Amino acid sequence: MRFQAPKGTRDFYPSEMAVLNWIMAAWRRVSLRNGFEEYEGPIFEDLDLYRAKSGEGIVSELFHFRDRGDREFAIRPEMTPTLARMIAARANALPRPIKWFSMPRLCRAERPQRGRLREFFQWNIDIVGIDDVVTDAECIFVAIDFFREVGLTPADMVMKINSRSLLSALLEARGIEPERHESVFAVLDKRDKVPAEAFTEMLTKVAGGDAELALLQGIGQARGEEGIAHLAEVARGNETAEREMARLRSLFEHLELMGVREYCTFDMGVVRGLAYYTGVVFEGFGLGGLQRAICGGGRYNRLLEVLGGPPMSGIGFGTSDVVIADVLNELGRMPAAATATRSIEYFVIDADPSLFQEAVALTAALRAKGRSAEFSYRRQAVGKQFKQASAAGARYAIVIGSEFTERRAIVLKDLSTGQQQEVARDAFLAGL
Amino acid sequence: MRFQAPKGTRDFYPSEMAVLNWIMAAWRRVSLRNGFEEYEGPIFEDLDLYRAKSGEGIVSELFHFRDRGDREFAIRPEMTPTLARMIAARANALPRPIKWFSMPRLCRAERPQRGRLREFFQWNIDIVGIDDVVTDAECIFVAIDFFREVGLTPADMVMKINSRSLLSALLEARGIEPERHESVFAVLDKRDKVPAEAFTEMLTKVAGGDAELALLQGIGQARGEEGIAHLAEVARGNETAEREMARLRSLFEHLELMGVREYCTFDMGVVRGLAYYTGVVFEGFGLGGLQRAICGGGRYNRLLEVLGGPPMSGIGFGTSDVVIADVLNELGRMPAAATATRSIEYFVIDADPSLFQEAVALTAALRAKGRSAEFSYRRQAVGKQFKQASAAGARYAIVIGSEFTERRAIVLKDLSTGQQQEVARDAFLAGL
Repeated sequence: MRFQAPKGTRDFYPSEMAVLNWIMAAWRRVSLRNGFEEYEGPIFEDLDLYRAKSGEGIVSELFHFRDRGDREFAIRPEMTPTLARMIAARANALPRPIKWFSMPRLCRAERPQRGRLREFFQWNIDIVGIDDVVTDAECIFVAIDFFREVGLTPADMVMKINSRSLLSALLEARGIEPERHESVFAVLDKRDKVPAEAFTEMLTKVAGGDAELALLQGIGQARGEEGIAHLAEVARGNETAEREMARLRSLFEHLELMGVREYCTFDMGVVRGLAYYTGVVFEGFGLGGLQRAICGGGRYNRLLEVLGGPPMSGIGFGTSDVVIADVLNELGRMPAAATATRSIEYFVIDADPSLFQEAVALTAALRAKGRSAEFSYRRQAVGKQFKQASAAGARYAIVIGSEFTERRAIVLKDLSTGQQQEVARDAFLAGL
Repeated sequence: MRFQAPKGTRDFYPSEMAVLNWIMAAWRRVSLRNGFEEYEGPIFEDLDLYRAKSGEGIVSELFHFRDRGDREFAIRPEMTPTLARMIAARANALPRPIKWFSMPRLCRAERPQRGRLREFFQWNIDIVGIDDVVTDAECIFVAIDFFREVGLTPADMVMKINSRSLLSALLEARGIEPERHESVFAVLDKRDKVPAEAFTEMLTKVAGGDAELALLQGIGQARGEEGIAHLAEVARGNETAEREMARLRSLFEHLELMGVREYCTFDMGVVRGLAYYTGVVFEGFGLGGLQRAICGGGRYNRLLEVLGGPPMSGIGFGTSDVVIADVLNELGRMPAAATATRSIEYFVIDADPSLFQEAVALTAALRAKGRSAEFSYRRQAVGKQFKQASAAGARYAIVIGSEFTERRAIVLKDLSTGQQQEVARDAFLAGL
């Protein structure tokens, strides 16, 4: 009987695993250097945890099951509920701010299609317990720090930034009641996803008359410095709206200070679908041929409470291994090193089958010293062993031959330069 | 509403995550230096894959579910079926020998109890495509190489080694038909798990008379050099049994050559429960207070065929993060470094709130240079910032104060020695 990987999942053969490891190592390196600590949680959680956050509708999008005790669980589709649960459980004991990252494996019961997998790895960064513009900037900086690390320039991507609390304040300042904000958000979120006429039509439906439609068109089309200037006019005279404008300006000033301003732009068309964002929202967008979101995040103020935690503000973002690999491949920036499956330092060769056991012993001794070393399992000709050494990408070949029999010496050959030298076996080992 | 992690699963807060990462980094390091390549697979597989390997009885031990297309899946309880499936799919394309490792997250629908978790991480090593004593030795060496790396000596553990094919050959040489071997295996596997009288009783049931009972007692009690000598007597005159004895002796010779003989002992009481082992079997056993298995493996010759693959022999072993943490904690050998959640090189401090933005800018510049750097989100007194720097475990504090205002200089303080020096900010950054 032949089996295949379930549709929408992936087998990581060594060359694919190397790419995943390379991506995850970069996530971890960037997280750590930005002062974040790593956490993890179970691959499955109480189904009710997801119901509590997203409602009953989420269940059909999850892989869920019951255990023998008839408890309902689901494989995690996202990390945020786990994060909220873990923080809630130790809310008083954890030092603030909480700066955590994770690289969870996630599953979604989607119908598999191109670019939509049922299983993937996600990089999550969260700063919880403080609501300050400097942490808005820090969170966005970390995302850009990663993309810059893997070679993306402002020509390759743009970080589109908006603020839901600013948008709310502007709407309220101009007489649009809070109950109507969600429907306006939903329309603005479609701005770049539907044709212009369709967008206007949707906006007309939520606007209470021509004056409001013009106002919403003006707000909705706001982009870049010009857009900020326009919104400042809309905000004028309203204290909350002006405070939100000042915070937005301060955010861009911090991003300038941090050296990543050129990656960033203001864009009212980024609202983000997730209902729990309450402040700044942002979305990295791949330019060139890619033309799609490559990361996204925002500030949430009530999420932890919904999941049983204390009232704490947080900001976070996520991206996936699939998106990162796509953008790097699209740009031709996936480095050759990302696909290396092995890094063998020494390949030990016997010049004669009678010396095979010496090759085994030396290989083991090298490994015991912490060096990566390999030998051929088959007793075969020297030439074939050299071929195997090259195939393994070994840096040096060590030949055990007549020099060993005569004076316990080995021949060390640099496989890139071809240079070789005889060295005493035991002195060589001792010198490592 | 308050939620908890499902019973039998774990939340990895940063300090626990650090331990897991430390263990997994050691697994990866040892795997790579022994010439293995990493692979991974989906967290869930077709339920039939597990049925094919283990029969219908396995289903109740799995977390299984259906997708909307009514296909049956299960969260993986072990990695071997995935390994076999992946090798089978590319059997002709993969260079031999296949030396692969993986560190999968696995789930089992067990009733949670002490030491038996429903979710854990397992280290798997497999050498597939060659049946040679040198690969038996290599596989056992890798396991010991890891335990030695994390500080276990022969006083802390013993690797008990046996061979099922030897046992079969001995039984057949002395007239016990192959159909009865499985039941003998099952009894011998209980030798060290039940009282001596119970063992003799079980043996009596499978033995055909007193002579056979004496034979089986003699074989079953064989341990160490003496045991091997006894079995050599049993094997004498039978070609297959003598060949198996020679292979066992050769295995120990190789382990001697590889410098790990002192960790190893022959023990007929290790048979291993899994039905698919066909050759050498081994089990690492924790001595001292632990007194339990810490890793186990063996050679399998038919496994790939059962799962749709070609006839290929393989040898592998596994151990789990839970066992490794237990053994290191038991021995008091979990290093302090294993629990470090962060490694901050520079903590940037402003001597005056008016210089806060310079602290932000310098921190970002350090990170952009690949250095780990942190600063305080709160504008607070210098003393409090120094405290935060210590709490973060930072190596250096950088103070931005009057020296900066006057001549763009910073004060670099080594937090372990207390030594400090003034350096020009831009030259410092450029010199990194």
